[in-house]
Amino acid sequence: MIGERFTVVYRIVGDEAAALEKANVICLEQTVEVGDELVPDGFIRDHVVGQLEQFSVVASGVYEAQISYAIETSAFELTQLLNVVFGNTSIKAGIKVERLGLGEDILSRFSGPRFGIAGLRDIVGVYDKPLLCTALKPMGKSAAEIAELAYQFALGGIDIIKDDHGLSNQPFCPFDDRVKACAEAVAKANQKTAKQCIYVPNITAPATEIKNRVHFAKQAGAGGLLISPGLMGFDTMRAIAEDESVSLPLISHPAFLGAMVTSPENGISHAALFGQLQRLAGADASIYPNYGGRFGFSREDCQNIVAGCQESLGHYAPIFPAPGGGMTLEKVPDMLALYGNEVIFLIGGALYSRSANLVENAQYFLSLVGR
Amino acid sequence: MIGERFTVVYRIVGDEAAALEKANVICLEQTVEVGDELVPDGFIRDHVVGQLEQFSVVASGVYEAQISYAIETSAFELTQLLNVVFGNTSIKAGIKVERLGLGEDILSRFSGPRFGIAGLRDIVGVYDKPLLCTALKPMGKSAAEIAELAYQFALGGIDIIKDDHGLSNQPFCPFDDRVKACAEAVAKANQKTAKQCIYVPNITAPATEIKNRVHFAKQAGAGGLLISPGLMGFDTMRAIAEDESVSLPLISHPAFLGAMVTSPENGISHAALFGQLQRLAGADASIYPNYGGRFGFSREDCQNIVAGCQESLGHYAPIFPAPGGGMTLEKVPDMLALYGNEVIFLIGGALYSRSANLVENAQYFLSLVGR
Repeated sequence: MIGERFTVVYRIVGDEAAALEKANVICLEQTVEVGDELVPDGFIRDHVVGQLEQFSVVASGVYEAQISYAIETSAFELTQLLNVVFGNTSIKAGIKVERLGLGEDILSRFSGPRFGIAGLRDIVGVYDKPLLCTALKPMGKSAAEIAELAYQFALGGIDIIKDDHGLSNQPFCPFDDRVKACAEAVAKANQKTAKQCIYVPNITAPATEIKNRVHFAKQAGAGGLLISPGLMGFDTMRAIAEDESVSLPLISHPAFLGAMVTSPENGISHAALFGQLQRLAGADASIYPNYGGRFGFSREDCQNIVAGCQESLGHYAPIFPAPGGGMTLEKVPDMLALYGNEVIFLIGGALYSRSANLVENAQYFLSLVGR
Repeated sequence: MIGERFTVVYRIVGDEAAALEKANVICLEQTVEVGDELVPDGFIRDHVVGQLEQFSVVASGVYEAQISYAIETSAFELTQLLNVVFGNTSIKAGIKVERLGLGEDILSRFSGPRFGIAGLRDIVGVYDKPLLCTALKPMGKSAAEIAELAYQFALGGIDIIKDDHGLSNQPFCPFDDRVKACAEAVAKANQKTAKQCIYVPNITAPATEIKNRVHFAKQAGAGGLLISPGLMGFDTMRAIAEDESVSLPLISHPAFLGAMVTSPENGISHAALFGQLQRLAGADASIYPNYGGRFGFSREDCQNIVAGCQESLGHYAPIFPAPGGGMTLEKVPDMLALYGNEVIFLIGGALYSRSANLVENAQYFLSLVGR
């Protein structure tokens, strides 16, 4: 039965002996959770315990350990796969998940991105150039006011108009009202422009409400769904991605996930968290804070995210990196130089503040990427 | 409509001017997500934007900002409440959630712990002394082998026998087989001992499987449920806690949550993450790594968790802190001195390694707490 394995590369801080000891402990901690002296010989020792495959120095006092696990330890469930990757070890200081090595045998147990870059391009009808996205805000506006913003942005040619991730079902802007009004507004604009702009409502919601929100959104004409896996769980996103009756592109938002990446020594690497795990959980685009904005990500962090979104991962499609977070229009040329065309640029506030004419602001945004 | 507010105390690192600036930015970031210049006067500026209530120095270069939010910003949903508390700000380095200030107006929107300390004591029939818990392990044993361990520990007088949190539905130990066998084994032991030991299976599972696992467990005779909210989402735990048809005590496991607490500058405090948020999400006991074990928590961290579990929180019951993680039997006297009686001691490996006689090992564990 057991034979196929997946790997995790952990970055471990410490002197060589301590780091090697930590690596060996991870093999036990992430599987049998007992000391080596209690591991039964035979099947459990030979197959269930993680195996240290490689151990090497990457910098002074920093080591990388590649550990492999039998795919059966994951029970072929995303929750348990994440648990094997980092469950208890997440609580130990000085250990970071650097990257996953997932073969087709385990990848095939999860759906992966339903659309990916190519599928999302088909939906919005834009090829060979970056897609443009904006957010409906601020919280506190009524559904009708939010929908009017959506209409203006869609007229201006934005491809993806999403709810701000803080809009859920507040009494001053109920979900159903907002989604219906925004979807209608964008459809009306599309008739005028002959474009295929999509409205993407935020369906981050209580566990018992998700299904209702998703299906209401679908029926109202939403063209995609915004989900914060940090708030709902990565597996909830996977379940929506796999649901044939939904079949809409999923855009993932990083809310509540930040502490996973803010420390250089703990948590999960940018590439694994905002790239590999998003694809594993079925996102078609991964929003994250761009370098130079109001969050602290570096250019290198962002390049690593692009790699995680787009490098080979079994049969899974590459997905869009979607840098946002305080981006200004002035920065678009530099972002273009870094990201090229396989990217979604997400600009919120700056698209409101350039002028009172949101249609013109959107058109200007398009012009900056040569559209 | 708007009037009631909840508060969050953020711990901010930096010089005074920078910390104050960060505090003001949090007020915008966690609500309207636009720069101050784009905040409309009137309702949105007066009510929706977070308000800085207090700002004070706590140490050199460390400040605390108390920010209040209108309860309506949460949409009365736990997912969105967590988003307002820390969604985007989690991604900014040098800001940590220190504690929540939740009034009855917002607390009453969520169920909170169904049992709490008093309710769980009634179920196991143990008063005035610590409850004792152990874990079934290692992964790789068959359902029958795991059930035999459960039988021995129950005979020995352990109160709570839980699945190791890595046991889900592996092919070598399927969930249904294990839960049925363990529940039967514990029931059989209870008949002999006339005690009320409970078996607590791990129901951390894919989103689409949770309901099945929970109800299978209930029907099989499980006496509680083990959940990792870091893997499934805090709101999933809340939904199970609120479900009248389940009505079993919930024991929360910290898997995958570690990066939230390992950094002193980022994430969420021990008290808020392992205390306040657990109660908000309906846990009756909160497992975390004890000081002096194989994780790095300090005595002070653990005392803060106890405070978060037990201090006043509206009408919510206090819940059990459940320190575990590499505890040895030798440490029990010191733990007793620190924790007193309102605690669950979780000892796994050391209860296997003391001798081959698990019944005796369990009885010895009881004797250490004066039972």
